[in-house]
Amino acid sequence: MIYFIEMNLKDIGEFELIDKIKTLTGPQPGLILGIGDDACAWQNDAAITLAATDSLVENVHFDLEINSWQDLGWKALAVSLSDLAAMGAKPQAALVSLALTEKTLVESVLEFYRGLLEIAGVFKVAIAGGNVSSASQVNITITVTGTGDGADRILKRSEARAGQKIAVTGFPGSAAAGLWLLKNRPGNVNATHTRLKQSFLRPFPRITESEFLVKTGVKTAIDTSDGLLADLKHILNSSRLSANIDADILPASHLTRASFTKNQALDMVLTGGEDYELLFTASHSMIQEVSSSLNVPVTVIGDIIEGPPGKINLLGEAGNKLQLARNGWRHFD
Amino acid sequence: MIYFIEMNLKDIGEFELIDKIKTLTGPQPGLILGIGDDACAWQNDAAITLAATDSLVENVHFDLEINSWQDLGWKALAVSLSDLAAMGAKPQAALVSLALTEKTLVESVLEFYRGLLEIAGVFKVAIAGGNVSSASQVNITITVTGTGDGADRILKRSEARAGQKIAVTGFPGSAAAGLWLLKNRPGNVNATHTRLKQSFLRPFPRITESEFLVKTGVKTAIDTSDGLLADLKHILNSSRLSANIDADILPASHLTRASFTKNQALDMVLTGGEDYELLFTASHSMIQEVSSSLNVPVTVIGDIIEGPPGKINLLGEAGNKLQLARNGWRHFD
Repeated sequence: MIYFIEMNLKDIGEFELIDKIKTLTGPQPGLILGIGDDACAWQNDAAITLAATDSLVENVHFDLEINSWQDLGWKALAVSLSDLAAMGAKPQAALVSLALTEKTLVESVLEFYRGLLEIAGVFKVAIAGGNVSSASQVNITITVTGTGDGADRILKRSEARAGQKIAVTGFPGSAAAGLWLLKNRPGNVNATHTRLKQSFLRPFPRITESEFLVKTGVKTAIDTSDGLLADLKHILNSSRLSANIDADILPASHLTRASFTKNQALDMVLTGGEDYELLFTASHSMIQEVSSSLNVPVTVIGDIIEGPPGKINLLGEAGNKLQLARNGWRHFD
Repeated sequence: MIYFIEMNLKDIGEFELIDKIKTLTGPQPGLILGIGDDACAWQNDAAITLAATDSLVENVHFDLEINSWQDLGWKALAVSLSDLAAMGAKPQAALVSLALTEKTLVESVLEFYRGLLEIAGVFKVAIAGGNVSSASQVNITITVTGTGDGADRILKRSEARAGQKIAVTGFPGSAAAGLWLLKNRPGNVNATHTRLKQSFLRPFPRITESEFLVKTGVKTAIDTSDGLLADLKHILNSSRLSANIDADILPASHLTRASFTKNQALDMVLTGGEDYELLFTASHSMIQEVSSSLNVPVTVIGDIIEGPPGKINLLGEAGNKLQLARNGWRHFD
């Protein structure tokens, strides 16, 4: 057994760290070349390649007082995989770029990789390579590549049509609820709180569900990373359309409803972000087909309508319009 | 004409920034989907795909007092492309992950993209997508993908053989010389200094040269990002061999020799880093073939020998061993 107790990056340097990561990672599926050279390599068939990149920045996306390194490893890959899910792609390989402070413990980096390898195993993603730099603020950037069946089977933001229904998987708002509890009820270990906290710490990208969306013929999807409203707005802007959303049927989980007031829960569902659910548009019958086949709940939350691009009408009881406080999480606002 | 004078990221927010970047970038070659969705997509033929990622971190790799944003755009892509050159890959697409402070000017980001597009145009790389986050420290991470001819035609670190010569393209040390001048002679505009400064600010990745190495049958290469000795050590560790280096024939450029003492120049050549030249091993005749065909100088600097993995003997006049001060740039040391 090897111990790296209290060893920090200043003690071992960049190259020894990469060696430790390489040892921990081991052989990765389907690669011609992995960690340890300037680039990684894999053989491609004639399929379409998709790629996406996403970053987690210290004190912006995570707080080391709240997120463990192992959870961060899970989440960092989850958020990039979620981008592939939003496109209907099958994940293939991941490149991990870490900017770490010199006080970061070696064991923390290995914990990070343990979490990363856990989720990589679930979704059969090769940890293909990466890069390590020093910095004053931790920045984790993961780029993932995947394959798609064909150009007409990629889920896009721009293919929504007036008359389609808007649906979402799972329970948006759970991550925001979990984050609130992590910050304000850190010691509370009741089962409801724990599950909500897990929604924030270890989101589960909808890779499997995405594959089924493509098979069913869905054309338009996005993942709810910025928040339900903000992400719906992306679809509406790209598709040059408006939407009506019915506030009364928004799918807050019973866990969120049990822990917060109705208005708090509504705000979390609409603007919370970081849920990494799939928000998609399709005909009612197509959504029913999707819904009956998936293991996660699928809720119809509104309609795509003709109107100014990006406009969302949030309708309450009796169809009256509600005011929106804000539009989901955005950087620099 | 559009003005963004003194507009910072807090004024426009993430999505408007991405729109501006999308407009500036325009249609990119060979893509099915580019900026504006969750992932980018391109059709692959049956070739091998290679990918590499590299980061530039503020106050570690660059200083906004020294590097202009446009130069940073060039350099950020150059350093990732150099990783592909080190593998003998033909570049294809780039994903750009930017962590920016809220005080970063919008115009600075666009300047960055102008530099990026310049070098992308030179090497026919598609700017395929990316991500923008807020941070307290600027971090630019670029992941590039490329294609290789076949598994046996990838340049690796592990294929050096005892008896081979060690060669390097161009003039290592020029970037270190340029950085010193940028810090200590910022106002000096004589032509020698300007050229050395450009070596640091706008390195030219050896993509074209790399292609010729592969054609000639070279199997082992690395780019000199960490410094000649540190990068040679990577090859020696991977190939489980030692090396003799002849200090007297190291290729310091006449510009470096003219601006620094002999010992300063030697130190810059050996440990400077950030030159992004190709360091490779091959038979003498193969190196001669490479040398006679390339537009950049190629210098034989030593021999691969049997011995402890990673050991470098630096030989001075009359073959006496020299002491090394340090081993090139490493993070966290």
